[in-house]
Amino acid sequence: MTLLYEGKAKQLFTTDDDNVLRLVYKNDATAFNGEKHDVLDGKGQLNNAISALFFGVLEAEGVQTHFIEQISDTEQLVRPTEIIPLEVVVRNITAGSLARRLGWEEGKALSKPIVEWYYKDDALGDPLVNDDHIAALGVAKVEELEEMRKRALDVNNVVLDLCRKANLLLVDFKLEFGLQEDGTLLLADEVSPDTCRFWDAKTKEKMDKDIYRYGLGSLQAGYENILSRIGGVVHD
Amino acid sequence: MTLLYEGKAKQLFTTDDDNVLRLVYKNDATAFNGEKHDVLDGKGQLNNAISALFFGVLEAEGVQTHFIEQISDTEQLVRPTEIIPLEVVVRNITAGSLARRLGWEEGKALSKPIVEWYYKDDALGDPLVNDDHIAALGVAKVEELEEMRKRALDVNNVVLDLCRKANLLLVDFKLEFGLQEDGTLLLADEVSPDTCRFWDAKTKEKMDKDIYRYGLGSLQAGYENILSRIGGVVHD
Repeated sequence: MTLLYEGKAKQLFTTDDDNVLRLVYKNDATAFNGEKHDVLDGKGQLNNAISALFFGVLEAEGVQTHFIEQISDTEQLVRPTEIIPLEVVVRNITAGSLARRLGWEEGKALSKPIVEWYYKDDALGDPLVNDDHIAALGVAKVEELEEMRKRALDVNNVVLDLCRKANLLLVDFKLEFGLQEDGTLLLADEVSPDTCRFWDAKTKEKMDKDIYRYGLGSLQAGYENILSRIGGVVHD
Repeated sequence: MTLLYEGKAKQLFTTDDDNVLRLVYKNDATAFNGEKHDVLDGKGQLNNAISALFFGVLEAEGVQTHFIEQISDTEQLVRPTEIIPLEVVVRNITAGSLARRLGWEEGKALSKPIVEWYYKDDALGDPLVNDDHIAALGVAKVEELEEMRKRALDVNNVVLDLCRKANLLLVDFKLEFGLQEDGTLLLADEVSPDTCRFWDAKTKEKMDKDIYRYGLGSLQAGYENILSRIGGVVHD
């Protein structure tokens, strides 16, 4: 079983089936482009459970993803794709870099979602890019961008719906897409509190990686709260 | 004659005609969001002459601008508009912030122009924005954005043509647009070596404000060279 890729929070291994990879969620938490780093017991298990649950619902709602099934506390099977080096960010409420970029306070509901593209490059700090930059970079075709944008808004609708029922606000989230060998576009990476901002709908309490970024308390407690609210099973 | 607006390099005054304003080019040179500032004798005169010449050609080529006529060494008459707080940047060759953003070296010809929008806000450092940000900011309508983009590419074609004849490379430039009371969109601000990067086509020598930004020699010598190459009269 070859390690194909190791990221900040996950590892990707081959299996004996060429059409199946094994994704392992690690306990590493990182922030500020890797400047802050800790190992937090149970984090991998929580992200694996939450992401598996979201991907299952997304698949059921017709969104094509790389997800096949969860096989253990920290592992999933996924379809192999070539990751497009773009992060698609969808925002419903102002927070984080959007608030800083435009000088807005956090927590302002947007009248319609804002979609942003970031070029995945740690050395450059994952810069914001537009369609013309992407064309010049040659990392995605115009039709692929359009499809990713549409797909990202579909994900927004599905996850917003889940969040409403869980008394959560979906503030914003980051997606990554990959291409299968035949050119099929699949939602890849993860959908978890590492990649989404979730706030309690009433108290606006942060229940996502901002807990870790800004030292607001126990990351695991926040993630367990998310998992339990969206109908998952929290292990002791 | 009331001073309506004073920017880093220009002043705008009323005249006795409500449909006409007087634009005065100053000798101030600034860079790095105002951190570097000097007064350079003759700069206002050079920018006035160069911008008047470009605006004249643009008008002749059917691009609607705020320009009426040059009335003195440092003054033009222009039509009043409400400036849309967006900078439209068109790039033909990599340089400046584009090269830094994407980790590219300077001087790479782009296979097609890159258009960028920046939100004019000194306190925020004029951040790059996309169409969704602009909609959320409420500073321009979708149709206005499309028209500005089209107009900016028209300006590119006209100025590229002038540059070719002058043995100059038009690396990139920044435009601003304004709306007349009836909603008519006009190219406003200036088109000069303060707002365009011009390089000698053969030696790649910089002949624009980068001379001042990076201390490469005499700004006035570079600007006089531009003015003379595009057919303007250089005063002693």
